[in-house]
Amino acid sequence: MDYPAVLQEIQARIQPLLGQGEVAHYIPELARVDARQFGMAVVRLDGEVHSVGAAQTRFSIQSISKLFALVLALQRHGEALWQRVGREPSGTPFNSLVQLEHEAGRPRNPFINAGALVITDILCTRFATPENAVVEFLRQLANEPEIHYDRRVARSERACSDRNAAMAHFIKSFGNLHNPVDEVLDAYCRHCAIEMNCVELARAVSFLAHRGRLPWNGQEILSESAAKRLSALMLTCGTYDSAGDFAFRVGLPAKSGVGGGIVALVPGECGVCVWSPGLEPSGNSLVGSQALELFTTLTGRSVF
Amino acid sequence: MDYPAVLQEIQARIQPLLGQGEVAHYIPELARVDARQFGMAVVRLDGEVHSVGAAQTRFSIQSISKLFALVLALQRHGEALWQRVGREPSGTPFNSLVQLEHEAGRPRNPFINAGALVITDILCTRFATPENAVVEFLRQLANEPEIHYDRRVARSERACSDRNAAMAHFIKSFGNLHNPVDEVLDAYCRHCAIEMNCVELARAVSFLAHRGRLPWNGQEILSESAAKRLSALMLTCGTYDSAGDFAFRVGLPAKSGVGGGIVALVPGECGVCVWSPGLEPSGNSLVGSQALELFTTLTGRSVF
Amino acid sequence: MDYPAVLQEIQARIQPLLGQGEVAHYIPELARVDARQFGMAVVRLDGEVHSVGAAQTRFSIQSISKLFALVLALQRHGEALWQRVGREPSGTPFNSLVQLEHEAGRPRNPFINAGALVITDILCTRFATPENAVVEFLRQLANEPEIHYDRRVARSERACSDRNAAMAHFIKSFGNLHNPVDEVLDAYCRHCAIEMNCVELARAVSFLAHRGRLPWNGQEILSESAAKRLSALMLTCGTYDSAGDFAFRVGLPAKSGVGGGIVALVPGECGVCVWSPGLEPSGNSLVGSQALELFTTLTGRSVF
Amino acid sequence: MDYPAVLQEIQARIQPLLGQGEVAHYIPELARVDARQFGMAVVRLDGEVHSVGAAQTRFSIQSISKLFALVLALQRHGEALWQRVGREPSGTPFNSLVQLEHEAGRPRNPFINAGALVITDILCTRFATPENAVVEFLRQLANEPEIHYDRRVARSERACSDRNAAMAHFIKSFGNLHNPVDEVLDAYCRHCAIEMNCVELARAVSFLAHRGRLPWNGQEILSESAAKRLSALMLTCGTYDSAGDFAFRVGLPAKSGVGGGIVALVPGECGVCVWSPGLEPSGNSLVGSQALELFTTLTGRSVF
Repeated sequence: MDYPAVLQEIQARIQPLLGQGEVAHYIPELARVDARQFGMAVVRLDGEVHSVGAAQTRFSIQSISKLFALVLALQRHGEALWQRVGREPSGTPFNSLVQLEHEAGRPRNPFINAGALVITDILCTRFATPENAVVEFLRQLANEPEIHYDRRVARSERACSDRNAAMAHFIKSFGNLHNPVDEVLDAYCRHCAIEMNCVELARAVSFLAHRGRLPWNGQEILSESAAKRLSALMLTCGTYDSAGDFAFRVGLPAKSGVGGGIVALVPGECGVCVWSPGLEPSGNSLVGSQALELFTTLTGRSVF
Repeated sequence: MDYPAVLQEIQARIQPLLGQGEVAHYIPELARVDARQFGMAVVRLDGEVHSVGAAQTRFSIQSISKLFALVLALQRHGEALWQRVGREPSGTPFNSLVQLEHEAGRPRNPFINAGALVITDILCTRFATPENAVVEFLRQLANEPEIHYDRRVARSERACSDRNAAMAHFIKSFGNLHNPVDEVLDAYCRHCAIEMNCVELARAVSFLAHRGRLPWNGQEILSESAAKRLSALMLTCGTYDSAGDFAFRVGLPAKSGVGGGIVALVPGECGVCVWSPGLEPSGNSLVGSQALELFTTLTGRSVF
Repeated sequence: MDYPAVLQEIQARIQPLLGQGEVAHYIPELARVDARQFGMAVVRLDGEVHSVGAAQTRFSIQSISKLFALVLALQRHGEALWQRVGREPSGTPFNSLVQLEHEAGRPRNPFINAGALVITDILCTRFATPENAVVEFLRQLANEPEIHYDRRVARSERACSDRNAAMAHFIKSFGNLHNPVDEVLDAYCRHCAIEMNCVELARAVSFLAHRGRLPWNGQEILSESAAKRLSALMLTCGTYDSAGDFAFRVGLPAKSGVGGGIVALVPGECGVCVWSPGLEPSGNSLVGSQALELFTTLTGRSVF
Repeated sequence: MDYPAVLQEIQARIQPLLGQGEVAHYIPELARVDARQFGMAVVRLDGEVHSVGAAQTRFSIQSISKLFALVLALQRHGEALWQRVGREPSGTPFNSLVQLEHEAGRPRNPFINAGALVITDILCTRFATPENAVVEFLRQLANEPEIHYDRRVARSERACSDRNAAMAHFIKSFGNLHNPVDEVLDAYCRHCAIEMNCVELARAVSFLAHRGRLPWNGQEILSESAAKRLSALMLTCGTYDSAGDFAFRVGLPAKSGVGGGIVALVPGECGVCVWSPGLEPSGNSLVGSQALELFTTLTGRSVF
């Protein structure tokens, strides 16, 4: 596959869309980002890196961190984790409390906020500073020692986290949160505030395309079966309330964040990351979604 | 892949589960079926057929007909169809009215009852006897002229279709059903009552594994892109309210019915059908789900 | 109490509001009514009648018929009726299906459409032509032999009753509707289409202000206790989804209809009816609500 | 009215019910109360006090404090308060978050927890120590200087207030809570922990039966109109999710608390309070509800 040509073509075709969509405005620090930026990277399992645009510019990974927090929790807590969080698409906007009420405090999946709070709670039980554990883990996955979270973004998000606090207290009222709400929210806002660029994220996700092993040294992060199952979960639940539509259009396992990043993977082939801050109403990068749809169209690579 | 050995192995391992699960009891004609039956078939794109158990016994395909009704509607009505029905997982039990109310009469996807009623309504507009059109279409897809629907099952289902009638009237109140409710329900109950066996269904679904073309003569049923997209929809929405869990465990595009059948496909490789009448609470065949999970485990074939 | 002066004052003060609100548009026959009409009548227990405006003009009583259908059902079916319908305010718009789903087909109260359908079903079991039974009953209560339902309005409403049909089928799917849906809907649309004027309706409701007995001859319609309890139900549930606000502002038991009529009563004193076709968003007459609020303000008569 | 005889009769007839119902168990301090206690008091507007049973035993007034917090907020904040909280029955269990989500953070009425949190927030803005303001206010209304809140009960409730915290954060996320959540919850748990007996509470509520004025000195607490409107609100929303049924059976404005107390009033006649700790599923005192139903049956006093 001629990835350089594919990425050039994508960059050319998304130009008219740049600036469309709305930058996440509920987090003041994120609201200041220039919406017209775009970057995309492909990291092949053989180590080749192809990129285009601002693929070296770091951005706030936000909900993409939920994917890595989940992998870390799976490593440490194992499959027992699924007793506390489901594996079904949410079917309602990503921060809905309704479903939690109907399902007695067990979030539908680990990629909606409610589920990620439970995952973070598990990390709070396992690590003294769970946000640092996630950062360390990402340094290993991205093979890059200089990854950090942005304290101002974390504080900014923490200061306007009433809805997440509501969710956390609600889950706790059902007994499905074990640590103090404030600690869980602190850790959550911090791992959401991790900053990475497209190349780093495409590499960090590539073990999922490689049967759960780091491509460069074969180290097992997850078992092959667990890696495949996680990919399935990304496909059905990874892009908020439009996961069905995203799977329909793109056909790749993916996880998005309101910072405008989306990671995806082609099993047996490569990790992918695209970034552009303008969001569609469901919270996914508008240009990023379009770029990934072009990616599968141009390469013929989808899982189907 | 040594499919005969795989199927033997599956048949051996599901024995202890036979008889578990509940036969669909809300349709009297279906309630009489022996729950301990099991059959499974694989139809490869090169035409090879492998099967085990009662793979030649016909059963009521029920909701599996929604898949073929949708393909037929896509052929005739095209992509405009998506204006009347969504592509998102439902997130609530398969016959829920709540979501319809919140979303103004546009069903979440064509595989829940509400969505299938809209698809059937489209067929009612296009065909004088839409149930016969679906039957004809299945004869073509299965390459088998003797396919019929069971009139007693259709009548039995029609006689206890108050919930579907409620849904149809409700959708009509939003203007999203164009034909008389009675006609739509008649056609719907009839195409659900089509009877086929595992081999026929595995073959009927194989065009989706073959870029939208019939494997034996290359005839295009859907474009390659449409076929892939439909596979994605099956993965995210094909197995009622447990589609997320099913994708997690099985990792193949699939569509189930309360008659106990499940069709699935391995892109580029084969169509699959399994049948066993006992259902899990979400409405999927209990043994069938387990058999498909074993299938992906034993073959290493999942889309991820 | 100088009712003539009170009514004059009310008529004067509501003039600026005439024409506000929207005439019920979902029933074509009702949509043609002139929204600027207004009438009001007070019928005292001693027989004195006071009225103002178009108090002799007949209008479609619509949901006000639910009150009389309920009284008739209570007479014939007794308190066992409450096993099939609740006594709680609905808390959601008057034709919601959501609550029915959560509460397994038992409508919250007999004044929402779902509940009135169950009441009509009870009448269908008890009477060959339940709509005529309601008409006869109203002739007795209003002491007026010439009361009829308008067949064109009934047909007009029946022709666009998909939402009620949805509700009826849904209730039937839970086993809480015993007669065929079509029969129940026919009877329902017909008793809703009864035409009466303000004086007739104020008289028809006056037995509720008189301990359950017809004021002019003492005949018992309901026991004193049942009459008081029904008044309580009118206060908590009689005015669609704004019953709380209506009770807050007006403080009288009342029942409204989308034809623009509202009946109310002052216990021990009089029956009241006001009519003006323009509706507020919740379905109650805008001017009528205002007129009744003025009535309690000017007379000091509320139940509190 | 021979209140002593009425109260004796009630006490005799509720004996078989004593011990039925469940003491509120989610607050450890309340769970220890003996469920077999019963007391009832009537305070007439002329000052006569009639009581029976443990009418001098203080108990935790719990949600009854919501009534007095609302009166105090109305005094200080005026009718503008209704912009932040509605006046409609909730239609769902008393601590539901669903409705808040659908109605953008404006609670349905001030007697459900969500609404009482908003009222407490208003008091937090107006008073340095709002719980003390409510205590002071109750000393005035009950004409009794020794009223306090129980710090252990308040702490006990505060320690298990995750659901209220969820609600408060959720309301705050919509901008409808102005003070820090912790402060609002502290004040809320404290005013709920006020302890009073039946005689004190019957007297404290008697101004509502007296056109808004203290019966013994004529001092205006609320305007006559505001007092009547508040009575209407008590009738439609005062007894959790069974307000409709309570109005149907009892027919008096009332407010209940999970401590087992219920205050009620007969306009122009008296204040009433009954107490018995066993609760029915909706959270109202089981024996207390029955006692009030007997009260209206025996005295013929209801508002209808």
